[in-house]
Amino acid sequence: MTSQQMPNWLKQRTYLTPGRVAMKSDDRDYTFKELWEMTVETAGKINTYIKDSRASFIGLMIGNTVEAVTIIHAVQQLGLKAVLLNHRLSPGELAFQIRDVNLGTVIVDDAFYEKLQDQNVQKVKISDLDCTSLTHFEIKDHFQLDGVCSVMYTSGTTGAPKGVLQTYGNHWWSAIGSSLNLGISENDTWLCSVPLFHISGYSILMRSVIYGMGVRLFEKFDAGRITKELKDGSITIMSAVSNMLQRLVKDLDDGSYHENFRCMLLGGGPAPLPLLEVCRDKHIPVFQTYGMTETSSQIVTLSPEYSLSKLGSAGKPLFPSQLKIMKDDNEAGAGEEGEIFVKGPNVTEGYYKREEANHKSFHDGWLSTGDIGYVDEEGFLFVLDRRSDLIISGGENVYPAEIESVLTSHPGIEDVGVAGIPSEQWGQVPCAFIVKGRGDTLSEDDVLSFCKSRLASYKQPERCVFVDEIPRNASNKILRRVLRDHWEKGVYRGES
Amino acid sequence: MTSQQMPNWLKQRTYLTPGRVAMKSDDRDYTFKELWEMTVETAGKINTYIKDSRASFIGLMIGNTVEAVTIIHAVQQLGLKAVLLNHRLSPGELAFQIRDVNLGTVIVDDAFYEKLQDQNVQKVKISDLDCTSLTHFEIKDHFQLDGVCSVMYTSGTTGAPKGVLQTYGNHWWSAIGSSLNLGISENDTWLCSVPLFHISGYSILMRSVIYGMGVRLFEKFDAGRITKELKDGSITIMSAVSNMLQRLVKDLDDGSYHENFRCMLLGGGPAPLPLLEVCRDKHIPVFQTYGMTETSSQIVTLSPEYSLSKLGSAGKPLFPSQLKIMKDDNEAGAGEEGEIFVKGPNVTEGYYKREEANHKSFHDGWLSTGDIGYVDEEGFLFVLDRRSDLIISGGENVYPAEIESVLTSHPGIEDVGVAGIPSEQWGQVPCAFIVKGRGDTLSEDDVLSFCKSRLASYKQPERCVFVDEIPRNASNKILRRVLRDHWEKGVYRGES
Repeated sequence: MTSQQMPNWLKQRTYLTPGRVAMKSDDRDYTFKELWEMTVETAGKINTYIKDSRASFIGLMIGNTVEAVTIIHAVQQLGLKAVLLNHRLSPGELAFQIRDVNLGTVIVDDAFYEKLQDQNVQKVKISDLDCTSLTHFEIKDHFQLDGVCSVMYTSGTTGAPKGVLQTYGNHWWSAIGSSLNLGISENDTWLCSVPLFHISGYSILMRSVIYGMGVRLFEKFDAGRITKELKDGSITIMSAVSNMLQRLVKDLDDGSYHENFRCMLLGGGPAPLPLLEVCRDKHIPVFQTYGMTETSSQIVTLSPEYSLSKLGSAGKPLFPSQLKIMKDDNEAGAGEEGEIFVKGPNVTEGYYKREEANHKSFHDGWLSTGDIGYVDEEGFLFVLDRRSDLIISGGENVYPAEIESVLTSHPGIEDVGVAGIPSEQWGQVPCAFIVKGRGDTLSEDDVLSFCKSRLASYKQPERCVFVDEIPRNASNKILRRVLRDHWEKGVYRGES
Repeated sequence: MTSQQMPNWLKQRTYLTPGRVAMKSDDRDYTFKELWEMTVETAGKINTYIKDSRASFIGLMIGNTVEAVTIIHAVQQLGLKAVLLNHRLSPGELAFQIRDVNLGTVIVDDAFYEKLQDQNVQKVKISDLDCTSLTHFEIKDHFQLDGVCSVMYTSGTTGAPKGVLQTYGNHWWSAIGSSLNLGISENDTWLCSVPLFHISGYSILMRSVIYGMGVRLFEKFDAGRITKELKDGSITIMSAVSNMLQRLVKDLDDGSYHENFRCMLLGGGPAPLPLLEVCRDKHIPVFQTYGMTETSSQIVTLSPEYSLSKLGSAGKPLFPSQLKIMKDDNEAGAGEEGEIFVKGPNVTEGYYKREEANHKSFHDGWLSTGDIGYVDEEGFLFVLDRRSDLIISGGENVYPAEIESVLTSHPGIEDVGVAGIPSEQWGQVPCAFIVKGRGDTLSEDDVLSFCKSRLASYKQPERCVFVDEIPRNASNKILRRVLRDHWEKGVYRGES
């Protein structure tokens, strides 16, 4: 069996179904044949900028554009590993990732060029590619499933971001696992308004090529226009996070989507039950799912037949994958809370150059997610907390430890803990709980403006609360759940 | 990546969707949970007969029954390699296979018990299992994709049958490759009236478990009842060979199938063009396909959008697979005839204990099929001859060399060549072209009755023609295409 080798995906797909629609932008449709031709041309242009023949990583700072899709495929054709850079990062955060993976070149959407200006790296604007000549490269017949395809950074609670290595095999098995649960139809069109630099968006492109399926690409989330398309029958599947779904539901009013629309794949953290109930009442076919950058998108998804009877559950593992709950080094029983472990061919082999983290997170093929949940009598997963401390704000992962480490550097702050608090608009936003230094006159505004210059906007605390003490456990780790708990019960409101 | 290991298929499927229908017999439906429970019980019973803990192969001589499905799964649960024995084989042919793979035990449908009576092997009738006690075995959490799952015998033109080793991975990738072409819907039900001991039937069971799809099992091909079910909307996909389809078309008259019926997967050799044209006119969604035991079913299939414009083509490779035509050690150009080569993770790694055949047929992952065909300008495969000499009679493979070797043993026969001639009922039937010994008074009846006791009925020549000379090439190989050619042109009719 040659299962580690596979025909070059986009080339094979173009050979098999050249005339099928691969992508629909606001302006026009692109067939797989057109996407292939654009990809090969773009790859030739990008190749002109790759002076070091030993280059293996290339940075991409892209939006949700047709050019970005083409560039993602072009980089695969060149055999380069794409490092997907979030354009919302601060200069310091960007510098860290560029250094960590030793990037020589970043292809950047003109809209984000300023973000990169001071970085020590060759910058290629997408508009530069227009007038770039082509450098010949050999089109590969095969992809190696064990070869690294993409790198996406994720911050652990321990601080420094880690580059998740996603192989072609990880993406392949993710797509296959999803298809065995959601099904595949030649009439499918998947709406993508989630970012292509996140695994949620990137994985849609991989499914497109593997299934021969069209992607309706939105540059930005636009509730009104998306609602219109979900109603007109041209869309069958859409990926969303709670925040988007909330806005769509508001927009839908008393109407309903077209019967062709068969799956609203809802990820990005546990969904609020009231939202799921509204969707049920409006007959929106929500499929809750649980996944992360490390699992190359979904790994646990609710099957269609259980979407109502198991409302609130993230479901069961995809066919090739597994799930277990561990408590005090033993597998937990039904209903018992513990840490979620997952295993499967879509799970990353590890983080780039992070031996310690890899040693800690991976055992015998199992990834310890750090998330808390339980499995019911029938084996359905309920996720209680997406990582115990992680804040999901508008679909973006925000890590308290990062914000804390910035605030700790302020001379007027003695101790600090950051936790997510509910937000109508973003699901959650970070809140900083601060113990002032003795006699200090620090104000909330001081703290927030201190963060502004040091953190990406979506990571900046929305609130700052002054408290007497940060709750910690025996080993001195911050109990962020207690912070959230106290906030919700109003314990701190008198103190600030 | 742990892609060589996967959750135990039926166990995982039962965990994921216990309540879905796995199988429909004439009498009732069985859910995956019921199939699992029956399988575990049957495995415990079969285990009672396995005295030698080193046993690895087990023979199955089965019909298309619910018990057979359960036994196939039970044998997988026990980690035994199933050797699928064709109940239409002659005693000598059976003895060869039993010896070749060193079978200790055969589980046999009571209806076929007589066939096995004189074989030197432990025989377990399916009815024996009813009153067998259970012997404990450990239920595996995982299947190993590189482990051998099943063995099916196929005869090369060179004579002795060869055991094709099919791994779990071969079956997995076959199912996945098919799904990426035909799609998967939770409403699918696949009608199986092709034999479970052939790859055509066995592969339907594997898809059932991997997709979570129901199988409508027919014990025998029954055109009237099948037509009724294709009309009533309960069936979405069916596997067929030309002979079956011909009878179904006749039965359909002026009617049409239900719109739920979306795929008539037509394999088992090149289909006659007039049949395909009738199907087109009757809006029967025929998907031509090309595959063999060595490719664990389909490897090339016509995509839905080309079913009309490329009528007569077997299509393009499944997504994970590849195809090429070789002529004089070079890849043939578009339209040029040559030998069909295929490659992919569904292709067997080789024949059991057949080093020479393996050396001859496999190069760098490519299987030389021995079949002749060409690929058109757009890459669509047209199969001209299923193996140059192979006779496909009622969906069964009949190998001229086998029949010739029997006839050669007749004292009155000087030379003999066997080739397929057209048959309304069976597609093809074997015809023996015979050069009599000097002065011999041999008659057609003598020859045919000589074969009766020595060959399975479907392998017995339907006609016998006496000729002056058998056409041979320079290296003395029989030119069977010339025999067929001459037969069709009436060259031999004066001679007999």
